[in-house]
Amino acid sequence: MLKVAILGGSGYTGLELLRILARHKGVEVGSVTSRQYSGKRIPEVFPCLRGYYDNLKFTEPSGFPGMDAELFFLSLPHGASQEVAPKLLKGGKRIVDLSADFRLKDPRVYEKWYGRHKSKGLLKYAVYGLPELFREEIKTASLVANPGCYPTSALLALAPFFNGDLRGVIDAGSIIIDSKSGVSGAGRAPTLETSFVEISEGFRAYKVASHRHTPEMEEVLKGLSGKNITLTFTPHLLPVARGILTTVYAGIKKPVKTAALLKYYKDYYRGEPFVRVCGDGTLPDIRFVRGSNYCDIGLEVDERTKRVIIISAIDNLVKGASGQAVQNMNIMSGFDEQEALNAPPV
Amino acid sequence: MLKVAILGGSGYTGLELLRILARHKGVEVGSVTSRQYSGKRIPEVFPCLRGYYDNLKFTEPSGFPGMDAELFFLSLPHGASQEVAPKLLKGGKRIVDLSADFRLKDPRVYEKWYGRHKSKGLLKYAVYGLPELFREEIKTASLVANPGCYPTSALLALAPFFNGDLRGVIDAGSIIIDSKSGVSGAGRAPTLETSFVEISEGFRAYKVASHRHTPEMEEVLKGLSGKNITLTFTPHLLPVARGILTTVYAGIKKPVKTAALLKYYKDYYRGEPFVRVCGDGTLPDIRFVRGSNYCDIGLEVDERTKRVIIISAIDNLVKGASGQAVQNMNIMSGFDEQEALNAPPV
Amino acid sequence: MLKVAILGGSGYTGLELLRILARHKGVEVGSVTSRQYSGKRIPEVFPCLRGYYDNLKFTEPSGFPGMDAELFFLSLPHGASQEVAPKLLKGGKRIVDLSADFRLKDPRVYEKWYGRHKSKGLLKYAVYGLPELFREEIKTASLVANPGCYPTSALLALAPFFNGDLRGVIDAGSIIIDSKSGVSGAGRAPTLETSFVEISEGFRAYKVASHRHTPEMEEVLKGLSGKNITLTFTPHLLPVARGILTTVYAGIKKPVKTAALLKYYKDYYRGEPFVRVCGDGTLPDIRFVRGSNYCDIGLEVDERTKRVIIISAIDNLVKGASGQAVQNMNIMSGFDEQEALNAPPV
Amino acid sequence: MLKVAILGGSGYTGLELLRILARHKGVEVGSVTSRQYSGKRIPEVFPCLRGYYDNLKFTEPSGFPGMDAELFFLSLPHGASQEVAPKLLKGGKRIVDLSADFRLKDPRVYEKWYGRHKSKGLLKYAVYGLPELFREEIKTASLVANPGCYPTSALLALAPFFNGDLRGVIDAGSIIIDSKSGVSGAGRAPTLETSFVEISEGFRAYKVASHRHTPEMEEVLKGLSGKNITLTFTPHLLPVARGILTTVYAGIKKPVKTAALLKYYKDYYRGEPFVRVCGDGTLPDIRFVRGSNYCDIGLEVDERTKRVIIISAIDNLVKGASGQAVQNMNIMSGFDEQEALNAPPV
Repeated sequence: MLKVAILGGSGYTGLELLRILARHKGVEVGSVTSRQYSGKRIPEVFPCLRGYYDNLKFTEPSGFPGMDAELFFLSLPHGASQEVAPKLLKGGKRIVDLSADFRLKDPRVYEKWYGRHKSKGLLKYAVYGLPELFREEIKTASLVANPGCYPTSALLALAPFFNGDLRGVIDAGSIIIDSKSGVSGAGRAPTLETSFVEISEGFRAYKVASHRHTPEMEEVLKGLSGKNITLTFTPHLLPVARGILTTVYAGIKKPVKTAALLKYYKDYYRGEPFVRVCGDGTLPDIRFVRGSNYCDIGLEVDERTKRVIIISAIDNLVKGASGQAVQNMNIMSGFDEQEALNAPPV
Repeated sequence: MLKVAILGGSGYTGLELLRILARHKGVEVGSVTSRQYSGKRIPEVFPCLRGYYDNLKFTEPSGFPGMDAELFFLSLPHGASQEVAPKLLKGGKRIVDLSADFRLKDPRVYEKWYGRHKSKGLLKYAVYGLPELFREEIKTASLVANPGCYPTSALLALAPFFNGDLRGVIDAGSIIIDSKSGVSGAGRAPTLETSFVEISEGFRAYKVASHRHTPEMEEVLKGLSGKNITLTFTPHLLPVARGILTTVYAGIKKPVKTAALLKYYKDYYRGEPFVRVCGDGTLPDIRFVRGSNYCDIGLEVDERTKRVIIISAIDNLVKGASGQAVQNMNIMSGFDEQEALNAPPV
Repeated sequence: MLKVAILGGSGYTGLELLRILARHKGVEVGSVTSRQYSGKRIPEVFPCLRGYYDNLKFTEPSGFPGMDAELFFLSLPHGASQEVAPKLLKGGKRIVDLSADFRLKDPRVYEKWYGRHKSKGLLKYAVYGLPELFREEIKTASLVANPGCYPTSALLALAPFFNGDLRGVIDAGSIIIDSKSGVSGAGRAPTLETSFVEISEGFRAYKVASHRHTPEMEEVLKGLSGKNITLTFTPHLLPVARGILTTVYAGIKKPVKTAALLKYYKDYYRGEPFVRVCGDGTLPDIRFVRGSNYCDIGLEVDERTKRVIIISAIDNLVKGASGQAVQNMNIMSGFDEQEALNAPPV
Repeated sequence: MLKVAILGGSGYTGLELLRILARHKGVEVGSVTSRQYSGKRIPEVFPCLRGYYDNLKFTEPSGFPGMDAELFFLSLPHGASQEVAPKLLKGGKRIVDLSADFRLKDPRVYEKWYGRHKSKGLLKYAVYGLPELFREEIKTASLVANPGCYPTSALLALAPFFNGDLRGVIDAGSIIIDSKSGVSGAGRAPTLETSFVEISEGFRAYKVASHRHTPEMEEVLKGLSGKNITLTFTPHLLPVARGILTTVYAGIKKPVKTAALLKYYKDYYRGEPFVRVCGDGTLPDIRFVRGSNYCDIGLEVDERTKRVIIISAIDNLVKGASGQAVQNMNIMSGFDEQEALNAPPV
């Protein structure tokens, strides 16, 4: 049994890690930290987990509990992983970090969007945990930076145009990413903006042209293509708990047909256990991936305007966070990549 | 591998059977019938199941397909199981019937609430598939009548008062059952009443004092207690897809305390894998059982008015239908009772 | 023009008062207080009111602003109206208090459920602002206690059995009130319990047998009937922003028919502008009163169990709070009772 | 009193017309037709309107009822207005047509997207009923084509760039319109696609690059600018009953600042009663216009990518349909343009 620890386990990504790992045959959750709930048993905080972890209590994060664990999931607030990671790595631990702390490689880009970084040296060392693109590097990584939810949905939608035969088909300067996310992406801390009455029957954009996931997408695409990429990204807030639908627009430079692109996408993602390319005429819906680790992708060429519209759907808490974190752990630890993740959506 | 067939597999209970059985290690779904979708592959109709059953097609129900199956799930409209069941039983097949056709034992009660029955003789023969009350009978049954969703939630809430030390504590004539159900309980056929705009932001009662699940509850309680029971049942329609919360009111004839009753309930359901009794001060929420086979139960004594209020929560499509059907199949076929059902709620 | 002030105007009842009064032809809102938003213009806090009150700013509550107003709406937290009311009344102001501070007449009952009261002497003096029952008293009242949302829905459902020809038809000791409310009833302050993700797709009971609206209902019914009434009340939380549906159960002591009761209810409420009695076979839905000051009422006799089930629907923020407050103001100030309230539900 | 008739009054646009006109001081609804509900009184079909139109019955559409009316609202299915309009116009009636039949001026464009038109000659004659752009023409029009819901939201967002000082600032070939609509836009006829369970907790795009509102937007923008415009339009389906949020992307050819654009928009729409331009840093939300005739507009310049993102919000049933139809009627008939439409959002 692989012993794991979850640092910062009382938010929605912590809850999802616990939910998913409850079904994992090769993993034991040794400790879960939470400043707020320290001393409480897991099901007291998350009644849906009654019957699971009945004897596991949240522990104080101070004093590095759980050091008997081999692998650590970091579900800490922004900036905290930078402090914890160096010590864990020195102790020979492996890390899947769910924060944004290690997702960017270029310290200047990090500091422009996020501010000062306390462990700059680790940025290059961290592996970007999108298995469909970086599976080999993940296998041997000590520090995996679990991708942001929006970048996961956008990068899987765009990747086939960036590292294969379709290179050069789209105009890289024309990319527009219009994303719509469920509210759980905003975290579990109560705010007026995410209260039921303020969200219910509403819909709006936020952080237009200024969301911090923008440079994350740009840097990965630059890494794939070798060229600087600048893109427009607009996130919106859906009145649902879970799910991200991303609609990507890009100008096409060569005539292509919808059916041919779909066939290419199917080939590109053949063998990937968690990417499902839709058939011609069908499109993703966040409902069809709910609770699962799938990313569904569909597309349509607009021949009138010479653009391709690519649409992807994920569950922001699963493929967009904790499910992908477990997928990374499975790859790092030699488990079947689908272990604990192979259930149909609900 | 146990080969099973699903007759009438294109509704929500059919979809849930397919979703749950996809994870079952000992079962193979040999055929699924659907008049409407005959010839289509499962994921064409249920895109959430893409990657599962990719090569299984819905077949025409006529001509008894799937006769190589050993066990049949009947998800047919009201009245249809009566026609199919005798032939299947003659062929040596075992049946879990998700309709109301075989839930009542007394033909007169059936005919009063439902009309004429075409296989009256089978009524006594059928076993009521609520494992927490009738596990032994289910083991050897050929024909299991899977309980209605409302009765499942109400009977598990009330049973401890009817067949154990608490007998006589409540006034059986005072029982009022106020239930609230998600919309999927109304089935998948499109109607104005269940369209999004007519349900969204709404809430209402329906079939007040006239819902057909009433005699089903009364008959089971009569069976447990040996006395005629008449109760008031009011179903309501919640603006959610899944879940039933049932609030039961009953007058108490002897002084009892909340804590003592909870302790009794915990003892009563000890060892039951799918009933979770809430601790003192906590109450069930349909959100905490969503997608799972659990029935959560809590209660409170109102000492001012000498009543007990018992509250239970289930997912109407899982413990209230397809999950319980798989639980019954597991019991009938000697599988681990939790097989394919042991995942935490989403 | 009647000048009014709103003390504590930044919650949902404050917002609703502003929304409704924007259409009132005889009223000018002179000042609105808010500690949190002091100095901000109304539409900065409530963007839906852009174009209305564009030049009105929230003011600090200290120092009794708005003393040029003749009538005060108090939308203050529990306990605060007790401190403010005596000073306003001394200044000759009239008050509609939306808090619970003056709803109960008996100080002992108040202190049992709420704790110490700072202006006990005013309790008897305050008029309970349910116009359908106390219109005459409201006309000349200086201090109107606007009813709680749950009591409004329950009392309008029950009143015809308590002060007219139907007296004695129901067993007063048998009354059970099962209510379901939208989340706005919990107020605007952000909490984990009312955050979108914790409410969405959920449904649960809360404060079972212990909600403070219980004695309010009991006292009004006692006032109507002259007898002590003890009832069971269970509130539930619906995943919608607005609306209360209340299902009332009561044993009947004499044989009555649904149609006869409905006819009686229609007669009883004839001329009432905001009570709509449903026809036979139709039932209230919170969707049909949304945004309006209506209370819709339907009922059904369960002849098998000798009970009547009465169902009422209101918008908790309108008839359950701010709409009723404006209705009271209209009555107190000699306006048409329907002024600013006569729009169909949305 | 202006007597009006509603042909096809049993859908959501019919219901909204009735709701809005109930408050109109100068209008009497003389007749409402409905094949399905002929003979029923309005509140029997729409219980929310109980207390309004209690004595008005739906009538059979055949035989041209309501010919004593002066103005006709046509809420008929696609293609039906073409047959009715010529006869009404010959009879001297004035028409506000809520269908797509007369929105396009160019018969070839109509036939490409919709098929054959039975009253081609009337296309040029009809006035496009977007008051903010065509108020003068509407005043004297006999046949007003009420705009589509998506075009209303997109055209009000884009118009300032097309007929004033900002001409030439955006690259007309770069326009992408990403819209998200509530489900009521799909009409009231029950379908599987719009049933509660299929929509709830879901979100998806539909008719990507092929929706019939595309040529409507293109033709109006061409009319304003004198140039052919080709744009990409992607509609999505939100799990809410009402509201459209449209996110428009366009490349900018000259350096402009967000604040300067907002100031220009405010000037451009100054005096318009139903367009509200958001302040810097605030953005529209469909919740803030719900139930009202407002169109809220905000924008942001993405200086990194040289694009402007314009966001507008309307209630698809009000400004996107029936509210705008009443606004057009008010203009045509000399009423105050805001009559019956001047209430704050709910």
